[in-house]
Amino acid sequence: MSALQIWALRGVGEIAENDSLADAIVSALATSELTLQDGDILTVTSKVVSKSEGRTVPFDGTDEDKVRLILQESKRVLRRRGTLHIVETHHGFICANAGIDLSNTAENTAVLLPVDPDRSARRIRGDVQRRLGVSVGVIVTDTFGRVWRSGVTDVALGVAGIKPVLDLRGTTDATGRVLEATEVAVADEIAGAVNLVLGKAAGTPFALVRGIDPAVFGEGSISEHVIRRAADDLFR
Amino acid sequence: MSALQIWALRGVGEIAENDSLADAIVSALATSELTLQDGDILTVTSKVVSKSEGRTVPFDGTDEDKVRLILQESKRVLRRRGTLHIVETHHGFICANAGIDLSNTAENTAVLLPVDPDRSARRIRGDVQRRLGVSVGVIVTDTFGRVWRSGVTDVALGVAGIKPVLDLRGTTDATGRVLEATEVAVADEIAGAVNLVLGKAAGTPFALVRGIDPAVFGEGSISEHVIRRAADDLFR
Repeated sequence: MSALQIWALRGVGEIAENDSLADAIVSALATSELTLQDGDILTVTSKVVSKSEGRTVPFDGTDEDKVRLILQESKRVLRRRGTLHIVETHHGFICANAGIDLSNTAENTAVLLPVDPDRSARRIRGDVQRRLGVSVGVIVTDTFGRVWRSGVTDVALGVAGIKPVLDLRGTTDATGRVLEATEVAVADEIAGAVNLVLGKAAGTPFALVRGIDPAVFGEGSISEHVIRRAADDLFR
Repeated sequence: MSALQIWALRGVGEIAENDSLADAIVSALATSELTLQDGDILTVTSKVVSKSEGRTVPFDGTDEDKVRLILQESKRVLRRRGTLHIVETHHGFICANAGIDLSNTAENTAVLLPVDPDRSARRIRGDVQRRLGVSVGVIVTDTFGRVWRSGVTDVALGVAGIKPVLDLRGTTDATGRVLEATEVAVADEIAGAVNLVLGKAAGTPFALVRGIDPAVFGEGSISEHVIRRAADDLFR
């Protein structure tokens, strides 16, 4: 029986502004001795997307500057405890400190989230598909906390070529009955799954996922299909 | 390079009260032509755990009876919209309708969550390890919604033989700097990953995960390490 398989890609160098992520992915696939196939999904951490898109900004290391950056990237603040801010970003993501990365960055800099992660994913997908002549999905990932459970997990900030929420409503279960609400957040499940292999290979921003249900492929975006509208939200 | 691999197990029949899940797992592994190895992780949906533990109760199909069951299984109600209740269960899980399963159950019955999913996981692990002579981890999974993102994902309700949150604080990143807060919710990431293969094989409650970081194995429980204490919670 065929398994779902996930590989962390090796041999990725430092990513700088205007670097082509598609070039870096193609190179890392070769180093990893992996050949991209139709129906594969590539994941890319938002950190390298931001770096390649020039979303690195000066940061003087002070709490004041940290809070200034958080507020600049936020639509509103939901909760605050010390310098920890749970905010709604301009994209509509609800996360800690507007997703700004202050660790593992160049001296005196911070890395902001990509302006439009769905667009970033579409660009990477287009570039990779042109280079390699295959049809794949792309997910831009980041690490978020959860409200009521300890620990962080990776989630999808942007997607291309896949439906991030798979609607199984109306399909039947094993006994032939119609299933209740089962809109499955497959893009987030893939992002979290990939984090299980990235953890072992600190520093690699790319992973390859093979064996995903073909029903996942199609048109979709995180901004349209995953970000919950405030009106549907019981906790905002 | 070795991949993380996930298989849905095939050939699982209906599970009834007092059935041995270890027997069902051993049988499904054989049908799936898979041999359990040291360092593998088995996942089991809470639904079959509950069924084997006799957590099936009468349910007359009315809204009144649904609400009665939800309140019976809950410590308190956080939000309510119609018959949808976001509650804190007696375990401390915050989820919709106390995790009670009203679909895909026998006529006029509902399936409640296991009383102690960590204990259930420990029992299944002990039984499987005795039967097969290997050292594995076990995760009992269920499907929960999220607060600010559409779609459901599977999470870990109970674990045995693994640390559900992997503390990477103090370890260094690729550039040698000490990483900031990175307590990774690996058990939840594994549960979500497994849902990607269970979706394709409707009805199968078991999956096998191979290739997980050995650092994940050890002592841990969801009740101690994942359920966030109300005092640490900004949204309760």
